[in-house]
Amino acid sequence: MTGSASGNFRGISPAEFFYRNRQMAGFENPTQSLYTTVRELVENSLDSCEEARVLPTVDVTIQSELGRTCTVSVSDNGTGVPDENVPNAFGKVLYGNKYSSRQRRGTFGLGVTMAVLYGQISTGTPAVIHTKTAQNEGNEYSVYIDIESNSPIVKSSNPLKRKERGTTVHITLNGDLKRSRERVIEYLRLTGISTPHARITLSLDDTERYTFGGFTKKIPSLPVDSLPHPHAADLELIRRLAAKNPDLRLHEFLVGSFQQLGHKTAEKFLNFIRMDPRATIGSLDREALSYLGNSLRKYDKFGKPSATCLSPVGKESFFNAIRKEFNATVIGYSQRGPLEWDGFPYIVEGVLAISDAFEQSDIPHLFRFANRVPLLYDSTDDVFAKTLKRIPWARYKPPEISGVAIFTHFCSIRVPYSAAGKQSITSVSSITSEILSLYRELGRKLKVFSEGKKRALHSRRKLKEFSRLFNLLAKFSSEVAGVDNIPDTSRMINELFEVDSDV
Amino acid sequence: MTGSASGNFRGISPAEFFYRNRQMAGFENPTQSLYTTVRELVENSLDSCEEARVLPTVDVTIQSELGRTCTVSVSDNGTGVPDENVPNAFGKVLYGNKYSSRQRRGTFGLGVTMAVLYGQISTGTPAVIHTKTAQNEGNEYSVYIDIESNSPIVKSSNPLKRKERGTTVHITLNGDLKRSRERVIEYLRLTGISTPHARITLSLDDTERYTFGGFTKKIPSLPVDSLPHPHAADLELIRRLAAKNPDLRLHEFLVGSFQQLGHKTAEKFLNFIRMDPRATIGSLDREALSYLGNSLRKYDKFGKPSATCLSPVGKESFFNAIRKEFNATVIGYSQRGPLEWDGFPYIVEGVLAISDAFEQSDIPHLFRFANRVPLLYDSTDDVFAKTLKRIPWARYKPPEISGVAIFTHFCSIRVPYSAAGKQSITSVSSITSEILSLYRELGRKLKVFSEGKKRALHSRRKLKEFSRLFNLLAKFSSEVAGVDNIPDTSRMINELFEVDSDV
Repeated sequence: MTGSASGNFRGISPAEFFYRNRQMAGFENPTQSLYTTVRELVENSLDSCEEARVLPTVDVTIQSELGRTCTVSVSDNGTGVPDENVPNAFGKVLYGNKYSSRQRRGTFGLGVTMAVLYGQISTGTPAVIHTKTAQNEGNEYSVYIDIESNSPIVKSSNPLKRKERGTTVHITLNGDLKRSRERVIEYLRLTGISTPHARITLSLDDTERYTFGGFTKKIPSLPVDSLPHPHAADLELIRRLAAKNPDLRLHEFLVGSFQQLGHKTAEKFLNFIRMDPRATIGSLDREALSYLGNSLRKYDKFGKPSATCLSPVGKESFFNAIRKEFNATVIGYSQRGPLEWDGFPYIVEGVLAISDAFEQSDIPHLFRFANRVPLLYDSTDDVFAKTLKRIPWARYKPPEISGVAIFTHFCSIRVPYSAAGKQSITSVSSITSEILSLYRELGRKLKVFSEGKKRALHSRRKLKEFSRLFNLLAKFSSEVAGVDNIPDTSRMINELFEVDSDV
Repeated sequence: MTGSASGNFRGISPAEFFYRNRQMAGFENPTQSLYTTVRELVENSLDSCEEARVLPTVDVTIQSELGRTCTVSVSDNGTGVPDENVPNAFGKVLYGNKYSSRQRRGTFGLGVTMAVLYGQISTGTPAVIHTKTAQNEGNEYSVYIDIESNSPIVKSSNPLKRKERGTTVHITLNGDLKRSRERVIEYLRLTGISTPHARITLSLDDTERYTFGGFTKKIPSLPVDSLPHPHAADLELIRRLAAKNPDLRLHEFLVGSFQQLGHKTAEKFLNFIRMDPRATIGSLDREALSYLGNSLRKYDKFGKPSATCLSPVGKESFFNAIRKEFNATVIGYSQRGPLEWDGFPYIVEGVLAISDAFEQSDIPHLFRFANRVPLLYDSTDDVFAKTLKRIPWARYKPPEISGVAIFTHFCSIRVPYSAAGKQSITSVSSITSEILSLYRELGRKLKVFSEGKKRALHSRRKLKEFSRLFNLLAKFSSEVAGVDNIPDTSRMINELFEVDSDV
C-alpha cells in the first residue's frame, strides 16, 4: 500500500495541492472564479475594517475585456497591510492573520492567495496591491506565487502615496462577467444585510453602478479572542497547551487554559476523574494526557461557552436592514446559543420576513449567512437548507399572498464548511437540532402573525356590519327625534372596537 | 485588507489546515471517520496491488471497544512500502506517490495521513505499519504526525519478518461501528463490483465475516502515464515545461511536451497563431508564454486524448460482477470518451440493470464510482445524481415489477471532486452533457428491452391460442383419419414461433 518499491514518492506544497484541486476552493470555472475573487477580497476588506474600528467603505470595480478577461479591484479603508507581510499575505497559501479564536469572515489564509494563483495561471498577470498603514505613506507591490515551493515572488515594490489608510487589490483573471454578474450583485446586496454598517459600491464596466448596505452607523463591538472550551480538548490541543507551560500543576493548568473552568469546577472535575491536582502537566505521559483530554470532552457539567468571541447581527440590525433592502414586513427573530459544537462556541440566529420581493413557495425562501458572509452556492448540501425541508411549514399558516423568507446566520470561531470554497455548512448533529428549534420558533411567530391577521379581518367585517346598523339607528333616531343633522357614529364605533389605524 | 498593522501574521502547515478542517477530508464525526479510514486504507491497498500486477487480496478487520474506540486493520499483498518512505508516507500530509498522470484511486497523498492524524488526536495512539517489499524481510513501524510542522515522528521501528510482500496498517480511532457498519459493508461490496479481480474480506468484532469481489482472475492492464493534452496548458504548466528544457525550439517543445501534437499539427498550429517555430521556448517572456498557453487551450483541432492512462471497468467485467452480486439482469452498457475536461482525459461508462434487489422508484437507483472507487456520501451534490433527475425516465418504459439501477463510472487522471473527502464530483459543464448522453443511451436500451418483453408477452398469448387450435385440428384430423394416437403439435408450433427457451 501507499506505493511501490519503484514508486516515485514526493511531497507537494499546499499551493500545489490547491492549484491541482482549485474547484475545492471555489475556482471551478471562469464564472465561479470571478465570483469567488470578489467574495474573498471583500471579506478580507471587511475583516480589516472591523479591526480598524471604522465604518467600512468598500469599493468594488470589475472591468471586463472581450468577455474573457476581467480585472477585479477592491478598495477599503481598513488597517492596511504592513510592508513586511505583503509578500506572504498575497503570495503564500495558508498564510494569514486569521488563525484566531474569534469570529472572522476569512479563516483559512487561502482565499485571496487562491485568487492571486488563479489570476496568474489564467492570464499570466501578478496581483497588484496598493496599501497604506498608520505607519507608512503607502506602497505598491506586484506579486506572483511560486506554486511548487508555495512562496511569494515580488515582481516590483515601489513607494506610492495613498491618502487614506487602507488597501486596494487588483487581480486580473479569466472571468465570465456576463454569467456571474447576478451572483456578484446578490452577494454584495446580502453582505449589506449582514454587515449593515458597511457601505459597499459596485461598478461594472463603468456602465452599471450599485450601492449596498449603509443601513446604520453603529459599529458592532469587536469579538475578542477566547480560551478554548474544555469540550474542544482533542489530544493535539492538550499536548500543545501542556507543552507551553509544562511546569504548571494540573489544577492551575486547567483553570488557565480553558474557559468555563474556574477553581471550583477544576477541583470537582479532577476529583471526579481521580487525577492528582498537584501533578505537573509536563509529567503526564501520552496515555494520561489522552485520558485527561477524553474526560474533558465528555464531562457534561462545564458551563456553556462565552459569547464574547462571537458577533451575531442582532435583532434590531437584522430587522432594519431587511425592511429597507426588501421592503419587507419582519415577523420575528430568534436566536439559539451560545452553544458549542466539538467545543467551538456558536450562535445561530434567524429572521422570518414576508414581502412581495420573495418568491411564493411551499417552503420559505432561504438566505444563508456564516460569520456575516452570504453563502450562495451548494445550497442543496447545506445544513440550513436540508433542515428547512423537515419543517411542516403549512402548519404555521404562511400568508397566501406574499412570499416568506428566512434569513439564517451561523456564527462561530470555527464554521464546519464542507469544502474550502466555504459555500455550505456540514450537518453536524448538534447544530442540526438547534436549527430545527430555531425554525420552529420562527414558525410559531409566523402562525401568531397569520392568526392575528385573520382575527383582524374577522373584526373588520363585524365592524362594517355594526357601522351600517349604527348609522341606520342614528338616522332613524334622528327622524324620530325630528333632528335634521344625523350624528356621526364613527368615533363611537372606533372606541367600541379599539380600532388600530395600522390594521 | 488581509489583516492589520497589529495583526498576528503566520503560516500554517497543510497538516494543521486539515487538522482544523477535518470535515473537508471526510473526518466529520466517529461514524464518518471510521468509514473514511477503511476507505482510504483499502484504496491505497488496491492501488498498490495494481502496481504489483497481482490479484489483490485485501483483508479488513475492525475491532471495537466499548462502542467508542475502533481498531481498523487492512492487510494487502501489494508492493510494500520501501523503508525510507514509510515515515513520510504515513506521517506527512500531501506526501505520496500518487502524483502521476494516470488513473489512480488515491490522488492527494492526504487520505491515509488524515486517518493517522484522526487516530492520534482522538485516541492518542500511533499508526502501526508492518510492511515488506521485494527488497527486504519486513519491518514494523509506529508513526505519529507532528501536526504543526507536518513531519513524521517515528516512535519505533523494528525488523519483523513477514512471509509475503505487502503491507498491513493498524489505526485506532474514535469510531462508531454500529452506525457505520452498513456503509462499510456497502462500500466493500461495491468495491468488489468496480474491482472485480480483487478478493476482499471483512471481519467485524470477530463475529461477522464477509467476502466481496473475486468475480474474475483477469488483471486489467495497468494504465500508463501520459503527456498532458494541449487543452490542459494553463500558464503554470507551460512555465514548468519550458523551465525543464529552455533550449528547445518551439516546434520541438510542443511535439515533445504534449499528446495529440505531432509535427504536422505543431506546424499548422504555430502557423495559425503566428509564432516562430524556431524560437527557443526559454526566450519567450511571460506575455508570450501566456499567449501560447491561451492559444493551446482554445485551439479546437487537436485530437481527442489518448485513453491509455485510463482504466474503465469495461462491459464484460461490469456485467459479470453486477449479475453475480445483485442477481440482476443487465440490460445495457454505454461508454463515452475518451474526452477531456480542462485538458484531463476521461471516460464515463454506465450499466443499466434490473433486479428485485433494487428498490422500485420513479428514477433508477444510482451507484456512483470514480476511478473504481464507490462514492457513498454527498449524493445530492454530485453531477451524476443531479443529471439523473433531468432524464424523463418514464419515457423509457421501465418495468413495473423489478427495480432499475444504473452503475456509473467516471475515470480520469484528475477527478473534479468537490471536496478533499472525495464524495461527490463537481458539475463541470462538458462532463454534465456527456453524462446526459450516457443516460439517454442507457434509457433507449431499456426501452428496447421493455418493448421486446411486451412483444414477447403478446407472442406468448398468440402462441397459446394457436396451440389450442392446432391441437383441436390435430384431434379432429385424427378422428377423420381414424387414427388412434393424436400427433404431438408442440414441435411444429415451436418452429413456427421460433420460441427462445429463455423468454
